[in-house]
Amino acid sequence: MPIVRVEMWTGRTHEQKAELAKEITDAVVRIAKTSADHTIVIFDDIDKSNWAEGGILASDHK
Amino acid sequence: MPIVRVEMWTGRTHEQKAELAKEITDAVVRIAKTSADHTIVIFDDIDKSNWAEGGILASDHK
Amino acid sequence: MPIVRVEMWTGRTHEQKAELAKEITDAVVRIAKTSADHTIVIFDDIDKSNWAEGGILASDHK
Amino acid sequence: MPIVRVEMWTGRTHEQKAELAKEITDAVVRIAKTSADHTIVIFDDIDKSNWAEGGILASDHK
Amino acid sequence: MPIVRVEMWTGRTHEQKAELAKEITDAVVRIAKTSADHTIVIFDDIDKSNWAEGGILASDHK
Amino acid sequence: MPIVRVEMWTGRTHEQKAELAKEITDAVVRIAKTSADHTIVIFDDIDKSNWAEGGILASDHK
Repeated sequence: MPIVRVEMWTGRTHEQKAELAKEITDAVVRIAKTSADHTIVIFDDIDKSNWAEGGILASDHK
Repeated sequence: MPIVRVEMWTGRTHEQKAELAKEITDAVVRIAKTSADHTIVIFDDIDKSNWAEGGILASDHK
Repeated sequence: MPIVRVEMWTGRTHEQKAELAKEITDAVVRIAKTSADHTIVIFDDIDKSNWAEGGILASDHK
Repeated sequence: MPIVRVEMWTGRTHEQKAELAKEITDAVVRIAKTSADHTIVIFDDIDKSNWAEGGILASDHK
Repeated sequence: MPIVRVEMWTGRTHEQKAELAKEITDAVVRIAKTSADHTIVIFDDIDKSNWAEGGILASDHK
Repeated sequence: MPIVRVEMWTGRTHEQKAELAKEITDAVVRIAKTSADHTIVIFDDIDKSNWAEGGILASDHK
């Protein structure tokens, strides 16, 4: 039943996402006592031009 | 006032979304007693390579 | 696989949510060709003091 | 620590987002007493074909 | 049409939210050329026991 | 920079969340090559009466 949503800057590879999905699911199943089949992990790639910290878009940081 | 967000795998057609938007809005208006004009439905197409169940990305499922 | 999220003002009854969950799931299954078992509907009750339109919190509207 | 998420139709320019990120961050820092460095603003461009009001996709509105 | 979502730790007053809603809406209307009536701002108060940075829940930070 | 959001049914203890926050952050840092300080994990406890699968609210499942 848990839904995990991971927002990261664009650029992670398929392998990184596959490994993250596996490790996060393992942690959720082990710690929160759920079943893997009911654990959903969703990745949301966000472009640096759509992400600001300190009031400045990450794509504009020097 | 209600906002409905539908996350589905990429691949639904414009017609399917138009029909879903209409039926979901109708249900919300009828059951939750809101007005259609204030009901927003947003679709979020998620690639199978960004969606994992059972710790495995959907694009890697055989 | 679809996840539907419904944000509404606090105040809908259990019966209204149960009926909405059923009708939205039926629409998604029928139109988007998914299975009901893999369709998740989540309700998020939002207090009027946390929701603004026109720059004014709904709890402050006369 | 605040995270601000702005969902708008596709079409805003980089300059508009940069200005919005700055003004929203300024407002959050000043009013909510946080630090700019810990304020994140994320933009989510949503296509009109994925956004419905009144049960009709915005891309289908005449 | 824009929807702005502000996630902050629990503790902001009604006055702070009212002021933030007004200023954010003003900025969105002015910069993104939308109308105030179609701009929604939603606040999501998150308890420190539900928010971690550096792998440590904020409620556990010394 | 990554933001991880975990939606689970109400009922997980503070200890479970603390452990999950730590393990998820570790995984994100190690696999996605980010720094722990910039990794945020947010938990969202969802009541079973607000979560439906198969068109039926979890609180109504026998």
